[in-house]
Amino acid sequence: MSMPSDLDISRSTTLKPLEEIAGQLGIGPHLLEPYGRNVAKISLSALDEHADAAPARYVVVSAITPTPLGEGKTTTTVGLGQALRHLGKRSVVAIRQPSMGPTFGIKGGAAGGGYSQVVPMEALNLHLTGDMHAVTAAHNLLAAMVDNHLHKGNTLGLDPHRITWRRVLDVNDRELRNIVSGLGAKADGSPRQAGFDITAASEVMAVLALSTSLHDMRARLGRIVVGYTKSGTPVTAEELHAAGAMTVILREAIKPNLMQTAENTPVLVHAGPFGNIAHGNSSIVADQIGSKCADYLVTEAGFGADMGAERFFNIKCRNSGMAPDAAVLVGTVRALKAHSGRYRVVAGKPLPPELLEENPDDVLAGAPNLRKQIENIKVHGVTPVVAINAFPTDYPSEHAAIRQVAEEAGARVAVSNHFTEGGKGALDLAEAVVAAAEETNQFHYLYPDTADLRSKIETIATKVYGADGVSFQPAAAKAIADYEANGFGRLPVCIAKTHLSLSSDPALTGAPTGWTLPVREVRASVGAGFVYPICGDMRTMPGLGSAPAAERIDIDEHGQVVGLS
Amino acid sequence: MSMPSDLDISRSTTLKPLEEIAGQLGIGPHLLEPYGRNVAKISLSALDEHADAAPARYVVVSAITPTPLGEGKTTTTVGLGQALRHLGKRSVVAIRQPSMGPTFGIKGGAAGGGYSQVVPMEALNLHLTGDMHAVTAAHNLLAAMVDNHLHKGNTLGLDPHRITWRRVLDVNDRELRNIVSGLGAKADGSPRQAGFDITAASEVMAVLALSTSLHDMRARLGRIVVGYTKSGTPVTAEELHAAGAMTVILREAIKPNLMQTAENTPVLVHAGPFGNIAHGNSSIVADQIGSKCADYLVTEAGFGADMGAERFFNIKCRNSGMAPDAAVLVGTVRALKAHSGRYRVVAGKPLPPELLEENPDDVLAGAPNLRKQIENIKVHGVTPVVAINAFPTDYPSEHAAIRQVAEEAGARVAVSNHFTEGGKGALDLAEAVVAAAEETNQFHYLYPDTADLRSKIETIATKVYGADGVSFQPAAAKAIADYEANGFGRLPVCIAKTHLSLSSDPALTGAPTGWTLPVREVRASVGAGFVYPICGDMRTMPGLGSAPAAERIDIDEHGQVVGLS
Repeated sequence: MSMPSDLDISRSTTLKPLEEIAGQLGIGPHLLEPYGRNVAKISLSALDEHADAAPARYVVVSAITPTPLGEGKTTTTVGLGQALRHLGKRSVVAIRQPSMGPTFGIKGGAAGGGYSQVVPMEALNLHLTGDMHAVTAAHNLLAAMVDNHLHKGNTLGLDPHRITWRRVLDVNDRELRNIVSGLGAKADGSPRQAGFDITAASEVMAVLALSTSLHDMRARLGRIVVGYTKSGTPVTAEELHAAGAMTVILREAIKPNLMQTAENTPVLVHAGPFGNIAHGNSSIVADQIGSKCADYLVTEAGFGADMGAERFFNIKCRNSGMAPDAAVLVGTVRALKAHSGRYRVVAGKPLPPELLEENPDDVLAGAPNLRKQIENIKVHGVTPVVAINAFPTDYPSEHAAIRQVAEEAGARVAVSNHFTEGGKGALDLAEAVVAAAEETNQFHYLYPDTADLRSKIETIATKVYGADGVSFQPAAAKAIADYEANGFGRLPVCIAKTHLSLSSDPALTGAPTGWTLPVREVRASVGAGFVYPICGDMRTMPGLGSAPAAERIDIDEHGQVVGLS
Repeated sequence: MSMPSDLDISRSTTLKPLEEIAGQLGIGPHLLEPYGRNVAKISLSALDEHADAAPARYVVVSAITPTPLGEGKTTTTVGLGQALRHLGKRSVVAIRQPSMGPTFGIKGGAAGGGYSQVVPMEALNLHLTGDMHAVTAAHNLLAAMVDNHLHKGNTLGLDPHRITWRRVLDVNDRELRNIVSGLGAKADGSPRQAGFDITAASEVMAVLALSTSLHDMRARLGRIVVGYTKSGTPVTAEELHAAGAMTVILREAIKPNLMQTAENTPVLVHAGPFGNIAHGNSSIVADQIGSKCADYLVTEAGFGADMGAERFFNIKCRNSGMAPDAAVLVGTVRALKAHSGRYRVVAGKPLPPELLEENPDDVLAGAPNLRKQIENIKVHGVTPVVAINAFPTDYPSEHAAIRQVAEEAGARVAVSNHFTEGGKGALDLAEAVVAAAEETNQFHYLYPDTADLRSKIETIATKVYGADGVSFQPAAAKAIADYEANGFGRLPVCIAKTHLSLSSDPALTGAPTGWTLPVREVRASVGAGFVYPICGDMRTMPGLGSAPAAERIDIDEHGQVVGLS
């Protein structure tokens, strides 16, 4: 079969005016602030206007443990949103904003794909309305104020060796991971070890995603800890008098961005926190608005259900007070085959040809991962629906194998052809989701605020990841003790581990058992509101490859973008 | 007298819809791309639509050599634009976009002032439409691609010790001036000395300001030289395959931004290149559009006439092919008194009280600076108009002294009260400008493209700055020889010297004679299209002060910005 490219589909879409898209949500033009012709910000007054509306059914889209290629979670989210409209439901989709670093690095863009994508893809992937840039600016203003404080006498007594606030840029630039700054003359600052992360990894991005209002964001920014005194007392952005200016820089960024799908379904694109050291979910304010303006709100959570969905339940919902009505688990034949442990799938390389041959036995051999991720939804009291994201290389016997496993595990299941067919290809999935969402569910957090940090980590490791237990390195144990002494023990935890395995070892496929989660160190995003134990090497500043996507991206003779796919 | 604050005046202005503001220029709504409610980008198609229109009278606003406080050039530019409307002329104002670094550093904002300001000031000073952020992103993508090229085998043979491309951020952060990057493991890049400048100092910003079309910008970006091989051959952004992606990042940024003054006069805000190491003028595309859509286009050039106006004539107009019809020189009583050499004016401190006493003799003692700057306009064949930017502390005898000097030097002169009265306070100035612009003038560049670099520098030094000659340090002489060997000798020159004196010594007031311009080194912005000799210490990354403006900027309980003044 032959499909046009994503960029061609995006260009051939008939965009509707955003006033009309907003109108589908009952949002009047007075609440829209257009940014160019194809994106608009929605004023937070929309929440006040719709305060009395009944909440939408709230559906989170997660996945089985993916291969390095990804299993089509965004495109399924978009396809499901489109299909719900075919069923006569007023639906809205909520996704994260893509990061420009990877867009010019390996990926080329992230907008869904095929006939289930967000359009226009150039607007989504490049700048959007500048929210990422605002995060960069607010983050780096705080960094400059930290070093200026040291330079101008350090009255707060910051220990230069215990400054935890790095700098950020939205670019894949390995050269900035570790630097020494402040070289030169006395007027040029104080030499110290420092470094840059990618903007998505900024705590400010996590703050933007978890804030429930402008004033809540102001308060969270003030609580950001930038470092410690020699005696171990945390020093905050509030004490540096930086939080007000940061809020002013972010005052437009806190408004969600309205776009549309290839079928003109409304999409809220807002915030893009990292999926490893942060919670990897789109913003609470976008979901608050979506929930009040639709019958169905379909929101995406990053990575597999052990990562994005667990944080969705225990961090995002805990902050918002919202409760999901159903959870979709996206799976593919290729990923389940890979979970058999018989294939090696590498990012940027073609799939092994034997993985494309008919082989339901391999699917069944990889099924423990699917079973465990279904369990990870159910353990939160939420009803799961398995979405088989269909590929042209799949065989009916392989889909049947997935169906059998899912149904035996107590989940609804549907094959979805949204990539090639748009919303009408996802009708079965949409019907299954409606049935699941209409069931009574018993959503609950996995642990209470009051549990101590160790037991929060142990609960997630044993109940979600399938570990036997957790080992804490001495540095991790000390950090936990310090955080609890400083009053951060009530925060939820966001475990930073690989997304390529249920375990902390990316090479382990399926549903590994008989292993222990090693916590190397523990850090805190006090402003955003979570503690993050680190299990393995977490790269927070990507690099470019040998042939970066940037080398292929250009304008043509008509000024149109080419090479963004 | 009591005036409301600039922020209060900005808030109390009745903004007109941008469609109506654009309508004043004959620009239809189909050419507008709104960014929020109060700023819109103008499609470059406006140029095609108005290709046959007669060009506007083109008026550049410059100044005498300013004190560190500035002499009100932006507010005069805005006031003049407003006053021309009172005279029945369709006028449009063109200014640079302020940089966010200084906004949160010492200044708090830059939008003109009083009843002659661009509104709303928050939009102008914070993000605007993201053009600065786009420059940052394009610049740093190129930097990442340079280091990635080194990391991945360096097939172009870049000498790591001769990489001239630094990184940029729009923040005042002295700590980043000099760094060592690439520390850590082998996968973390190659250790080398590096550093950051403020975004306004990026060559990409100068490219944005000097490009005449999207495709011209693409070509200039490709010509950017990032460093040299061991044998001294320049390596370009084109050779790194980076220029296409940079253009894609900047494809919206090249469209000028439309705002309005406190009296609803149209304002084009576009690009903000540094005034020292770059040419310090707003964009050519904004002036191209303004020129085709108005009777009068009033455009501002940075610093005094020896700096901004000289570069306006010899760099900006040389690139655009446009010819000015008149030049305004803004002067103040306080600055002329300071040029007597009898007072010390320091940024951020109150004026010496004795400077505010009636003293026309001190004004006359400082007058050589005004005379020389009038000469600097006339030497380009352009008709000068002196604008006395009136302050409540001025005396009529002092205005009379300025008038006498200006008229004796062959310039029109007018007292202007635009700060306190808006456009109607600048009617005399507007009438003088109209009279000047209607005269035949003989605009010409100061030197031809074909002159060699040394003689270009010597021409500016002796004819504009009043130097006896130029001394070239050995490094400067070698750089000039290398640039000419590489074919860059045809470029115009942009001399980086202090803006606080006609000479290269900021302590010398008036019109210094008997001095030699010392050229320490010479660099080139080959993509933007100029060579810049460096005379003195040029700071390209500011620092924050002891009490940065950021500490006072916040939101109030209604979410309104406070502290931005």
